[in-house]
Amino acid sequence: MSINWGERIAQGAREMSSSAIRDLLKLTVQPEMISFAGGLPAPELFPAEEIGAACEQAIIESPAAALQYGPTEGHGPLRELIAGWMADLGLRASAGQVMITSGSQQALDMIGKLLIDPGAPVAVESPTYLGALQAWQPYRPQLLPLPMDEDGLDVSALAELLETGARPRFLYVVSSFQNPTGVTLAPARRRALVELAARHRLPIIEDDPYGELVYEGERATPLAAIDCELHGELRHVVYLSTFSKLLTPGLRVGWLVAPPALIDKLGQVKQGLDLHTGSLAQVAAYLACRDGLLARHVPVLREAYGRRRDAMLAALEATMPAGVRWTRPAGGMFLWLTLPEGWDAAELLGRAIAHQVAFVPGRSFYPAGDVTNTLRLNFSYSSPELIAAGVARLAEVARAYTPGGLTQL
Amino acid sequence: MSINWGERIAQGAREMSSSAIRDLLKLTVQPEMISFAGGLPAPELFPAEEIGAACEQAIIESPAAALQYGPTEGHGPLRELIAGWMADLGLRASAGQVMITSGSQQALDMIGKLLIDPGAPVAVESPTYLGALQAWQPYRPQLLPLPMDEDGLDVSALAELLETGARPRFLYVVSSFQNPTGVTLAPARRRALVELAARHRLPIIEDDPYGELVYEGERATPLAAIDCELHGELRHVVYLSTFSKLLTPGLRVGWLVAPPALIDKLGQVKQGLDLHTGSLAQVAAYLACRDGLLARHVPVLREAYGRRRDAMLAALEATMPAGVRWTRPAGGMFLWLTLPEGWDAAELLGRAIAHQVAFVPGRSFYPAGDVTNTLRLNFSYSSPELIAAGVARLAEVARAYTPGGLTQL
Repeated sequence: MSINWGERIAQGAREMSSSAIRDLLKLTVQPEMISFAGGLPAPELFPAEEIGAACEQAIIESPAAALQYGPTEGHGPLRELIAGWMADLGLRASAGQVMITSGSQQALDMIGKLLIDPGAPVAVESPTYLGALQAWQPYRPQLLPLPMDEDGLDVSALAELLETGARPRFLYVVSSFQNPTGVTLAPARRRALVELAARHRLPIIEDDPYGELVYEGERATPLAAIDCELHGELRHVVYLSTFSKLLTPGLRVGWLVAPPALIDKLGQVKQGLDLHTGSLAQVAAYLACRDGLLARHVPVLREAYGRRRDAMLAALEATMPAGVRWTRPAGGMFLWLTLPEGWDAAELLGRAIAHQVAFVPGRSFYPAGDVTNTLRLNFSYSSPELIAAGVARLAEVARAYTPGGLTQL
Repeated sequence: MSINWGERIAQGAREMSSSAIRDLLKLTVQPEMISFAGGLPAPELFPAEEIGAACEQAIIESPAAALQYGPTEGHGPLRELIAGWMADLGLRASAGQVMITSGSQQALDMIGKLLIDPGAPVAVESPTYLGALQAWQPYRPQLLPLPMDEDGLDVSALAELLETGARPRFLYVVSSFQNPTGVTLAPARRRALVELAARHRLPIIEDDPYGELVYEGERATPLAAIDCELHGELRHVVYLSTFSKLLTPGLRVGWLVAPPALIDKLGQVKQGLDLHTGSLAQVAAYLACRDGLLARHVPVLREAYGRRRDAMLAALEATMPAGVRWTRPAGGMFLWLTLPEGWDAAELLGRAIAHQVAFVPGRSFYPAGDVTNTLRLNFSYSSPELIAAGVARLAEVARAYTPGGLTQL
């Protein structure tokens, strides 16, 4: 009389599996663990008092907007504020082109639902953000992985792919301080990419949650802004970002900016997903930003995370055995280690966890799942002292590592 | 060089269209309009101060849980609290079977993604909740509409359907004070339905956002509780509910309770959608409920909404022309009008709006879109005085109405 639920799962959902991120986030809660695994901002830097005050103010100032059902596209004043901020980056779009999403993750799901038919080709960086791969799994795209180097996506490889007649539904790119590698798409490549996309009418989904977290040099110009500059308006790029890394993830408030022709359809998609993003969180984010919180808080994050990045780079330099290489990100939250050929990061993780240090093996970030000797380290979550201690533990594990061996430390 | 976005929309999303609810909610903002259209709770009854205090307390008491990324399944203490509350209703399930969702709407999308393959049969009440139809449109089910009467779903019609060998993926039922009709599934039918579902291994999705809003008689026993009673555990029912109608919709916090075998897969689905529901909103809902807010506030809603329902029934009785019939809900937020045969509610709406009163024509609530002479009235949003005035306007429009005619008032 019981139901066999397993045989009733829809085909798209069957292909989903528990993600490495999800399982590994569970590791971060053990008290003695130094975790470089999660993509977590530093909780001690949250502007908690200001967010609390903004919530209170939201309920006093606009109880109807903060507590009632709201428009699917988002809280009007917040959309206006974001449109103004985007314009400062060169991304000229009306408030009507801005939609509030329940974090950037929801925007990824919306893009999947809107643009991916089963079997449709989708071009992605390799490696790329695991959460995007996971969001799109149920829509069953055919992923076309593109190589990257220290200047980001290899645009000439994309050009070659397009020359062969491939017609991806879109290209997905994390343009600055990419998750997982920390690498940023170089300025010259950005322009070449937008020109290429325009030539081939290739939509670009630009995911930019880390762009403001700059520790060296200038904030990069979004692809979406270059599109506006080259074509007088936003035509080829859907731009995604979020308050999760700049204020707090707990609000679940992100946004997208899209060409006008897409907005209605995106609204229909979002309405089916959750009617709208939490009203109170939206009004609170608006009030906090209106009162200048971002302008005050982003420099604090840049300073603190910059020191954490430096601590991680210094510790790696001081302790890692020869043959281990890593990226040197100018911002963001992650760096990327490449282990010697033949090493297995998942195997290394088992030993690292026994020594109370955690990271994410790189394999699940590759669309083809075909690379086993890379790993992602997060440097935003832990203090410089913990970073030094954790990298030392990791280096010890790496020095004792023999691929396939049963080395005990 | 521009992209033709229209030709790039995935097949599932192509079938979506702007919903009547969405377009009509826009009408409710005109100041002179008396709107019975939206499914909105009364904003003047929101426990605004308590929610504000709960947010503040959440940030002081548990800043990490309230502001950081959280578990996909939801805030642990809130899941525990809901499991306890559900047990009081006879729905015995562990906290591990409770998942927090971004409103009930997200739970509907999750169910669609999890259980609907293109072309798969899905049994629904006719009429049924428009938001469910809209959430499932992209998954392209074959809807099997089932008749209802004043005792809710016609369970014998479902039995006949199942006897013919039909194997719906699930039955969707809004068990109490249904949206849109206000009708409640009668106790004897509830038991018969759960027995029938068990016999045919038919999953039931029970949507119960209004069950606590009782103005006459007792709170109905959820189908999920009957399943637990008959089978010793939750086996055939996934139960959905939300704080949107009991506290405030602006938090976007709902929940589902599912058989253990479904929880992992639902977690994977939800992770792809938005990682997790807003942490701050979850912790605030938890603290508010822990401090007894629901127990204090639900009686306030019952009292106030009960008076609004009475006001609407009295005004309909006093003013409506002969031949117009309506349901007499014992709770919830809606009642359902049936106009004389041959009348067109959409046509009537055009005239009603000219007279500053709005409602939702019934047609879009029917899976087959084949009934044009019904309409939904909401009675929770407007004061008894506005309800009396609005119904009088509507009756005036109805008295002057001639189907297809160009009657001017």
